[in-house]
Amino acid sequence: MRTITIKPKAITHNLNQVKKLAPQSKVLAMVKSNAYGHGVAAVLPALTQADGIGVATFTEALEARQLGWNKTIGLVEGAFTADEWQQAIEHDISCVIHHVPQLTWALDNIPPVESATRVVWLKYNTGMNRLGFNAEGVMAAAKRLHEAGYQLILTTHFANADNRDHPLNALQIQRFTDVLNALRESISADIKGSLCNSAGTVNFSEHHHDWVRPGIILYGSSPVIDKSVQELDLQPAMSFSAQIIALQTVNANDAIGYGSRWVAQQDTRTALVSVGYGDGYPRVVSDDAYVSVIDSTNNQSYRCAVIGRVAMDMIVIDVSTVPEDAHLLDSQVLLWGDAPHIDEVAVHADTISYELLCRVTMRPRRIQA
Amino acid sequence: MRTITIKPKAITHNLNQVKKLAPQSKVLAMVKSNAYGHGVAAVLPALTQADGIGVATFTEALEARQLGWNKTIGLVEGAFTADEWQQAIEHDISCVIHHVPQLTWALDNIPPVESATRVVWLKYNTGMNRLGFNAEGVMAAAKRLHEAGYQLILTTHFANADNRDHPLNALQIQRFTDVLNALRESISADIKGSLCNSAGTVNFSEHHHDWVRPGIILYGSSPVIDKSVQELDLQPAMSFSAQIIALQTVNANDAIGYGSRWVAQQDTRTALVSVGYGDGYPRVVSDDAYVSVIDSTNNQSYRCAVIGRVAMDMIVIDVSTVPEDAHLLDSQVLLWGDAPHIDEVAVHADTISYELLCRVTMRPRRIQA
Repeated sequence: MRTITIKPKAITHNLNQVKKLAPQSKVLAMVKSNAYGHGVAAVLPALTQADGIGVATFTEALEARQLGWNKTIGLVEGAFTADEWQQAIEHDISCVIHHVPQLTWALDNIPPVESATRVVWLKYNTGMNRLGFNAEGVMAAAKRLHEAGYQLILTTHFANADNRDHPLNALQIQRFTDVLNALRESISADIKGSLCNSAGTVNFSEHHHDWVRPGIILYGSSPVIDKSVQELDLQPAMSFSAQIIALQTVNANDAIGYGSRWVAQQDTRTALVSVGYGDGYPRVVSDDAYVSVIDSTNNQSYRCAVIGRVAMDMIVIDVSTVPEDAHLLDSQVLLWGDAPHIDEVAVHADTISYELLCRVTMRPRRIQA
Repeated sequence: MRTITIKPKAITHNLNQVKKLAPQSKVLAMVKSNAYGHGVAAVLPALTQADGIGVATFTEALEARQLGWNKTIGLVEGAFTADEWQQAIEHDISCVIHHVPQLTWALDNIPPVESATRVVWLKYNTGMNRLGFNAEGVMAAAKRLHEAGYQLILTTHFANADNRDHPLNALQIQRFTDVLNALRESISADIKGSLCNSAGTVNFSEHHHDWVRPGIILYGSSPVIDKSVQELDLQPAMSFSAQIIALQTVNANDAIGYGSRWVAQQDTRTALVSVGYGDGYPRVVSDDAYVSVIDSTNNQSYRCAVIGRVAMDMIVIDVSTVPEDAHLLDSQVLLWGDAPHIDEVAVHADTISYELLCRVTMRPRRIQA
């Protein structure tokens, strides 16, 4: 059966790794996009030692509150309307303010002094060029928000933190530090700072400031290009498995699947696995893509190549590597988990693990381990 | 707000197009993988004129029964276990039989004469090389099933029906026709045939046999490489939209987004749209990818390129093409629907519309139009 297994203990372990990396900082654990596809209800209980969570939409924020999360919730794109700003106040959500309309809503509608919405994440565009004020705008906005009684966290987002040596990192760090220092001198020494996502937390330990904002690292993928999950001691929080439902031996020169994309070089034993892109396995994968077949009788694991085009409901794998006396029919097949790690599958699919995680569909059953 | 709009009337229209293409055949409408991501509950009421529906898993079959579908349900990979075979009998599901274990379950546990499970879709592997018996095996299985009282539909699946001229098509058609004729001569003239998926229904009108099994065509994408949806008079059944939440003007030489992948050639007006791969828009798209921005004040539509890397929660678009006095903030952005059609987006993402449809996540709200 198609199965997504979520391991809350792995998430807690990974959170502890973040805390070791950034022991002086508070942690805003990113749970946007249904906790990177893991399911926010499954993930929140594993994050009780985080100081807050980050979400992308107001609906996500409300869901977390309804699930009982009573610490900080940071809405990382902020309110989309004046009405959402009012709702943020009602539900004690802390918002990013990244442009003038949001600033206006905040100045026109000031939350009670004890409200978490009094804490504002003021976004400075240091080089990502998506959201945020420029240096001049952020200084002016900070002054007005401070005078209105808001507590400020200056925040920005790295564009290339996964690649430690990218020249933009130093520039973004410099810009951020300069403005943070200027704000603390000219407005208030109490202004906080938050610069690092997962990759920044790993790569820029001198610049963790008051809050780090880990995302992918919590789910057990490497956020940086030059360190593996082993080096970072991370545990994958999701495994994805399915089942062999048929066996075939194809003859040399027979083609398999749509587009007759894969042609047997010799007579080849194949197995049909009941999983496909309709479950969230990527449709286009390179010839390096593989799965692990587990012989249920002895728990032995075999590496088997994915052959032919991934279809909506099925993939075909080459089981030539499996001894002929192994038990195959009904056996479990690991698409990602310990091996292959999802970071490998992402390389085979020309993307990153984040996308694979988010785009798993609701068809596989979901269990926790 | 991120919104998936489903148009049941489009599905009914597309079903009627199938019926015009194959007026002599019954229609098994494919609703596997949550009706290609459209939501089976939204789609079933639009398919009342179909003769049956096709699903990939037993869970999907049960869901359709629970939603009140009381006509044929075909389980296209068949039962996975003897227990599922028994459950199929209990819920009147018609199963594919593609290998010996399923044949054994059917012969060991014969449903009542009035049960829909007495109808068996016997799978012949004519060249797809995924599921099915070879010619000899299918003849032997048919004989035994017929003798046990089953009604038979011989079925197979095209590997290259989208490409009318692919040489495997003629071979698959020949093999199928030969075995179907042999079965009718040697066993029973009542044995039915089902050969064509969407593409086969369009491309091989001489070979529709008793049942066609349309899938993607029902949802308004072209199933063939040489005919557009306009030529086939199909209507897209899903549109995907989101909202502009911020505007920026970036300077010449500024980079946007992760990896600083896109660099402005001149000062450029950009807009931030609150949608990303966390919603199901593909992360990797070519530089040809575009969206339609709709000025809500006058319903004027503008074609805007997607620039920079698609992120989990955001994309950036180039709004240089939009007049400076147009209303942009809060405006709706069409990711796919009438224009761009999802078939175009699929080309930009190096995949097919089927995958995009299935892998839309549960984050966007869902409405019907």
